[in-house]
Amino acid sequence: MSTPAPNAAVPDEHGLVDAWRTLLARQAATACALDRELNERHGLGMSEFEVLERLVEGTEGDCKATLRVQELATSVHLSQSALSRLIARLEKAGLVERSMCAEDRRGVSVCLTSEGRSRHAAARPTHRSVLAATLAP
Amino acid sequence: MSTPAPNAAVPDEHGLVDAWRTLLARQAATACALDRELNERHGLGMSEFEVLERLVEGTEGDCKATLRVQELATSVHLSQSALSRLIARLEKAGLVERSMCAEDRRGVSVCLTSEGRSRHAAARPTHRSVLAATLAP
Repeated sequence: MSTPAPNAAVPDEHGLVDAWRTLLARQAATACALDRELNERHGLGMSEFEVLERLVEGTEGDCKATLRVQELATSVHLSQSALSRLIARLEKAGLVERSMCAEDRRGVSVCLTSEGRSRHAAARPTHRSVLAATLAP
Repeated sequence: MSTPAPNAAVPDEHGLVDAWRTLLARQAATACALDRELNERHGLGMSEFEVLERLVEGTEGDCKATLRVQELATSVHLSQSALSRLIARLEKAGLVERSMCAEDRRGVSVCLTSEGRSRHAAARPTHRSVLAATLAP
């Protein structure tokens, strides 16, 4: 039987792998519960809710304000192409509207419709209660 | 200006949302770094490495042992269809072999090839050093 030598470069390999697997498992369990509950009760996926929430936060006090797709992509951790497909679904459902940026014709901006704002408000308690159930210590 | 009333059902809504966003951001940053480094240095995606690692762990001491696709799906947090596509890629690259389960003709089992075992061993230090860089406190 060999005794592993202490390794200064990888001081706690098992601890790191355990921490990573725990993080992945928590993320997967929470995402799965959010997808299921938000879909069943409000017809929204987890990332769709997340985009509506960022739009509510980013445009508070100004219901005609817009966010650029690039800004949204960073905060919701989606690729630009996945986010564009998601925004197209939200637009088809009447929850957001897209427009070209006035100052940059290549950029696309998104704003909430009033239907999008009410759908977010309706789904918010479900989102919070799933987080309370899955993330509470 | 309204003062929010204390709410026993949602004791710390901001804390929950912050905890969830922090978890998502850490998961996304680590997954992105793993995908980039493992792909550049070893031609493997993060989930491909994860499947090879589960096979190494699950078949330790017995290089002909197999794992069922269903068991793998739970531990790597992929849908059965996403995992099947991933295993097909690994098989095409000569890193795993698939076989029907002897006791259940509907089930599919997977085992590592010796090339799969060496590719995992070669990529393991990269995986650990990315985790050390992204997860260390």
